[in-house]
Amino acid sequence: MAHQGSSAPASETVRVELGERSYAIRIGVALLDQLGTEIGALCPPGPTAVITNPTVGALYLGRASAALAAAGFGATVIEIPDGEPHKNLTWLAFIYDHLIAARLERRSPVVALGGGVIGDIAGFAAATFLRGVPFVQVPTTLLAQVDSSVGGKTGINHPGGKNLIGAFYQPRLVLADVGTLATLPQRELLAGLVEVIKYGVILDPELFTLIEQQLDRILARDPDILQHLVRVSCELKAMVVARDEREADFRAILNFGHTVGHAIENLTGYQRYLHGEAVAIGMAFAVTLSHARGLCARETMERVIAVLKRAGLPVQIPPELVGPQLATAVAGDKKVSGGIIKFVCIEDLGRTRFESVTGEEIAEAAARRVGAGTNEGG
Amino acid sequence: MAHQGSSAPASETVRVELGERSYAIRIGVALLDQLGTEIGALCPPGPTAVITNPTVGALYLGRASAALAAAGFGATVIEIPDGEPHKNLTWLAFIYDHLIAARLERRSPVVALGGGVIGDIAGFAAATFLRGVPFVQVPTTLLAQVDSSVGGKTGINHPGGKNLIGAFYQPRLVLADVGTLATLPQRELLAGLVEVIKYGVILDPELFTLIEQQLDRILARDPDILQHLVRVSCELKAMVVARDEREADFRAILNFGHTVGHAIENLTGYQRYLHGEAVAIGMAFAVTLSHARGLCARETMERVIAVLKRAGLPVQIPPELVGPQLATAVAGDKKVSGGIIKFVCIEDLGRTRFESVTGEEIAEAAARRVGAGTNEGG
Repeated sequence: MAHQGSSAPASETVRVELGERSYAIRIGVALLDQLGTEIGALCPPGPTAVITNPTVGALYLGRASAALAAAGFGATVIEIPDGEPHKNLTWLAFIYDHLIAARLERRSPVVALGGGVIGDIAGFAAATFLRGVPFVQVPTTLLAQVDSSVGGKTGINHPGGKNLIGAFYQPRLVLADVGTLATLPQRELLAGLVEVIKYGVILDPELFTLIEQQLDRILARDPDILQHLVRVSCELKAMVVARDEREADFRAILNFGHTVGHAIENLTGYQRYLHGEAVAIGMAFAVTLSHARGLCARETMERVIAVLKRAGLPVQIPPELVGPQLATAVAGDKKVSGGIIKFVCIEDLGRTRFESVTGEEIAEAAARRVGAGTNEGG
Repeated sequence: MAHQGSSAPASETVRVELGERSYAIRIGVALLDQLGTEIGALCPPGPTAVITNPTVGALYLGRASAALAAAGFGATVIEIPDGEPHKNLTWLAFIYDHLIAARLERRSPVVALGGGVIGDIAGFAAATFLRGVPFVQVPTTLLAQVDSSVGGKTGINHPGGKNLIGAFYQPRLVLADVGTLATLPQRELLAGLVEVIKYGVILDPELFTLIEQQLDRILARDPDILQHLVRVSCELKAMVVARDEREADFRAILNFGHTVGHAIENLTGYQRYLHGEAVAIGMAFAVTLSHARGLCARETMERVIAVLKRAGLPVQIPPELVGPQLATAVAGDKKVSGGIIKFVCIEDLGRTRFESVTGEEIAEAAARRVGAGTNEGG
């Protein structure tokens, strides 16, 4: 990926190449005001639905609705409560009820305006309403712009686990308006940055180095560098998804940091950590395990952990979670097959390797790390 | 399609060609006992779930479970109540709960053992559990063997309409054991036969003539002719689906008789008619409209209506349903776009043609038919 300079043009486009399911990701400032014309290029005017939450709705719904109305799309607004606990069957049923009441047809677009929770549940609703209607993502968090709005994973949670119900369903369009990041709480910005760091670690050493060097500018939300990070992240994820849309094999490298991250989220009831924070801990664990297995150099491990710590992200597994419950939690992940976890390690920045490990081996490695006082990755 | 003779071999295979989503339909007697070995050729041994209802379960679950166990598949049985009213979100949630409790993994097969209702809801559960697990159809009704188990339409109903929530999701395997048709109530056998007659009318004049000539043998459930009808129907539907999997265009010919059929089901609360019975009425209406528009000969119209009547199927729209409510009901179908209905007419046996009509035009044609005393198609 090209990282020469970081002065970003007004708007950029990344294509996700998936044959007849290909689509464009537009990245820039004030794209929200072009929502109507962009959708108008894909769908005939008519009814549409915008799915959002009260926080994002208060900030951006007016502009989105006005842009849609100007292009001939009468929007029904479907507001669901903010937060992961509402990404469930109850609120999915609420969305279906409103899509049906709004008389949407097979060609009527459904728009997700919000972060990952909104994108996941709205995407699943679009995938399954009338066996699939056009879906448009307008991600308003850094995490959603660099990760969840790209790649077609949609879904909802079940008391038994996160995203256990869902579908692969590609959007017809993604509009990533980096202007919306200005209102994002700092903690959520950092949680999104974790996925950008992940792309650097597993796929793009140059991106990783850029983050190391420009971290202060990123944390100060320089719009140019944010746009650059979103664009490069989308390019990297699009490349992975184009190669392996349904996660048969290669796409699983994106789970780097997520095996332990998901387990930590699960063990803390999705209350204590944001997803990105749990993944930061999982990434620190993954590089430590990679080094302990002789796969990567100590320096590589230390650089990854250092940048996470400098950003103010957590890197240690809370000691009270280290034990048999960790083994159970990692083995409960939906990607596990036959009890064997396909764990993503690194050999170097930009070079990954799958290791077959059991839940017990992960729990033991975590316990050794606590015992050796290196849980902080030091 | 070849209709020479009607003595069927022990088992036959129809391939549905959909690239990487291609699959086999096996048709024959006593295939239920091969369920384990057939699935074993596709999925590694492990946990599986069989979704069925009490009626079918009492008849065939023992054999299915024994066959699965012999091949190393430990089956969790998920039983849902019999009938269309239970094809809903509540029972879907029940299925998810049990799939999760049974610790199914991404490669664990989900088996539908039953008719169209079981196939639709189990297929949708398989499509959306862990974003898609292998799905195996074991249809036990004629309707499911010739129609709903082929083509990948899955879904559930909503108070606002039938199959409004669903997904296109192809099975990995279909096992159509025609031996299970021996226990089918006669009314359900006839309702399934309607779809076979439909294939003859829209795609295969030879098949239609065979049904005209052999109707008595069919109604007496001669196993050889039933197997022949299932095989030819699957071949015809597989050909249509291979050409247009997601119903962008051509596949819509399969909706012949269904526009009015769905409306009648809807207006009678899905209580009075079986799906096939409502479609029989819809087909009689469609040929009458085709003739009234000068598209097909009177003789063709009369032959179609005659074979339906000889089989004891209904062919007239109940007069109390003829009126503005019929216009509203046909326009409420999920396939309607912009208020215009893509209505399937015939020009001759085996030759279809789409006509753009409104709900009002359909209601008026139905009223004229009642007024002219030709509602019975005479």
